[in-house]
Amino acid sequence: MFELLATDPTSAARRGRLHTPHGVIETPIFMPVGTQASVKAIHPQELIALEAQVILSNTYHLWVRPGADIIKDAGGLHSFMGWHGPILTDSGGYQVFSLAKLRKIKEEGCYFNNHVDGTPMFLGPETAMEIQAALGSDIAMLFDECTPWPCSHPDAEKSLDLTLRWARRCRDWIDQNQPLTAGKPQLHFGIVQGSTYEDLRQKSARELVAMDFPGYAIGGLSVGEPEEDMMRIADWTCPHLPQNKPRYAMGLGTLPQMVELIARGIDMFDCVLPTRLARNGTAFTHEGTLNLRNAKYARDFSPIAEDTHPLVKPFTRAYIRHLINTQEVLGLRLISLHNLHFYLSLASRARQAIEQGCFADFRTEVVSRYQPRPTASDSD
Amino acid sequence: MFELLATDPTSAARRGRLHTPHGVIETPIFMPVGTQASVKAIHPQELIALEAQVILSNTYHLWVRPGADIIKDAGGLHSFMGWHGPILTDSGGYQVFSLAKLRKIKEEGCYFNNHVDGTPMFLGPETAMEIQAALGSDIAMLFDECTPWPCSHPDAEKSLDLTLRWARRCRDWIDQNQPLTAGKPQLHFGIVQGSTYEDLRQKSARELVAMDFPGYAIGGLSVGEPEEDMMRIADWTCPHLPQNKPRYAMGLGTLPQMVELIARGIDMFDCVLPTRLARNGTAFTHEGTLNLRNAKYARDFSPIAEDTHPLVKPFTRAYIRHLINTQEVLGLRLISLHNLHFYLSLASRARQAIEQGCFADFRTEVVSRYQPRPTASDSD
Repeated sequence: MFELLATDPTSAARRGRLHTPHGVIETPIFMPVGTQASVKAIHPQELIALEAQVILSNTYHLWVRPGADIIKDAGGLHSFMGWHGPILTDSGGYQVFSLAKLRKIKEEGCYFNNHVDGTPMFLGPETAMEIQAALGSDIAMLFDECTPWPCSHPDAEKSLDLTLRWARRCRDWIDQNQPLTAGKPQLHFGIVQGSTYEDLRQKSARELVAMDFPGYAIGGLSVGEPEEDMMRIADWTCPHLPQNKPRYAMGLGTLPQMVELIARGIDMFDCVLPTRLARNGTAFTHEGTLNLRNAKYARDFSPIAEDTHPLVKPFTRAYIRHLINTQEVLGLRLISLHNLHFYLSLASRARQAIEQGCFADFRTEVVSRYQPRPTASDSD
Repeated sequence: MFELLATDPTSAARRGRLHTPHGVIETPIFMPVGTQASVKAIHPQELIALEAQVILSNTYHLWVRPGADIIKDAGGLHSFMGWHGPILTDSGGYQVFSLAKLRKIKEEGCYFNNHVDGTPMFLGPETAMEIQAALGSDIAMLFDECTPWPCSHPDAEKSLDLTLRWARRCRDWIDQNQPLTAGKPQLHFGIVQGSTYEDLRQKSARELVAMDFPGYAIGGLSVGEPEEDMMRIADWTCPHLPQNKPRYAMGLGTLPQMVELIARGIDMFDCVLPTRLARNGTAFTHEGTLNLRNAKYARDFSPIAEDTHPLVKPFTRAYIRHLINTQEVLGLRLISLHNLHFYLSLASRARQAIEQGCFADFRTEVVSRYQPRPTASDSD
């Protein structure tokens, strides 16, 4: 299922290949986010042009609108949205905890009112597996409780124990139902929780590995904790995950964070920033972000970046600035394409660097060039 | 400049070919509208895929944002927006009269405050020609006063006389400056005004023809007058325009109106509806419009139309409905592509029908199939 093709002698970075029912994913990989069965503003043909290999979609959002039954009747999520490559779906848990109203967490799962029209709903381990089976994603995530940050050790342990009992119920549901997509077994990833506590992260990893899933994710990252904690969590967790299974860090993050997590042995990433920040004119570059609404780009007739995607290269910063200022959708499209290309090509360069034995240089270069915040002169 | 390739024996319909500095336009033709240097939500490569031959852009909007000087410095509008086919620009007059604030019309032109930040501006015949020369459009429109509807005969005549004096000043400016685009002479179209009065329309046509422009437009259409008046105006005007010059009906209209105006000898059309109505989920079909937000499409797994564009064909009505309901930009994109394809392919079919001598059948078919309003069951 997961081939380990090469490892980096200077770090825990890995070059791998994950086989899924809808195709192969070369890792490390960045996954564009298509929350509502659409990577925001992007046509599936453009995802192919961007060489996206796998996208992420959100079970909670699709369950609320249009409903899992409609997507099932359409022939599954791939057919519904016209993307025929691999899809990973989350379990819906994260959105229940962050978006839904009147939440009540019980042993059996979570009761809540949805955020769109307030309809009372229930999501538990079995429901989350059922919905993802109906969607027909290639990789389905286990239902877990995402602990907030900060969180005391007793609270984190209590939450983790619930997550582990839910994982066991997911495992049982999978064994009984053995869901298929494209005629092949759907892959299920366990999610390591345990907040910022080493013993809990290790306990979580150990118990999930004992349940034997085709892949493992690290959850509860990017929930507000310092970057230092994020890296520590990866350091604590990865050594306890099997070498021959893919590892996914959920919901990042900046480019240097992605590279630093690759160095710690993470294979898969997702991030909403490339498309979310495009809306207000923010483009990623090797040096950090640039805000194209800034007046200094009014007569800048160079492209966003020399190494941007061919679909974006013909357009100048001046033109894209004009489009954003006049709220033209094409501006959002062009920056989204650029940002997705930027993240995807970074992952591609990381793969190449590991293969060629120069990952250490690549890591140093990416981290040292990137400025974590826009410079003062770049904000308008 | 304009070749008349075929005429229809049953009507005044013509099949023509207009040579412009940036390429050839086969007529009758529909022109997608790119108000702010972007056909809303559409990438120039998609315009090529749609077989668009010429687009329209708006001088007033571009003058306000980003400014004609920036577009000139970018190498002209084609280079700025990445569309290298023919472009027609309006004179800016219509927007000054419909959008700008504190308007004062004087003999020399129009003083106003722009609608974006209230900056006082002045637009007159010479300025309108200068700005369009800076934009470098292939076809530039003369500066005119667009009379409102209804309008008394004395008011319409007073307005027309001003428009004719402005046309004379445009003619003089063109003769003195001889603007080029892509190294070839920019084409200038005169605009026939005169409201709903036959004598004024004829006077307008006669005097403009005497000034000898490369093409003529009919203005003051679709300003609220009954369709009957629109057709009468075309009936009165076209016979007074030279056979060997293209004719453009400004700012329509429904599909049957387009076909009926082709039958009266009009060659060029524009309409904002294909992209404007896409935003609220309205798609054009041969039978009229359909509103994809309607619940009856929730499980409709057929495409918008069997003859939609290949970029839209893979997607179902159910999926596009979901995208519109969740305000996903891709929904707007797909309906815009469909609607533009629908208008463009109608023009293509009209050209073919005239060539093949079956325009009368085509006209009957289009007009009889189309329902002017959505059926009651189609509105939600």
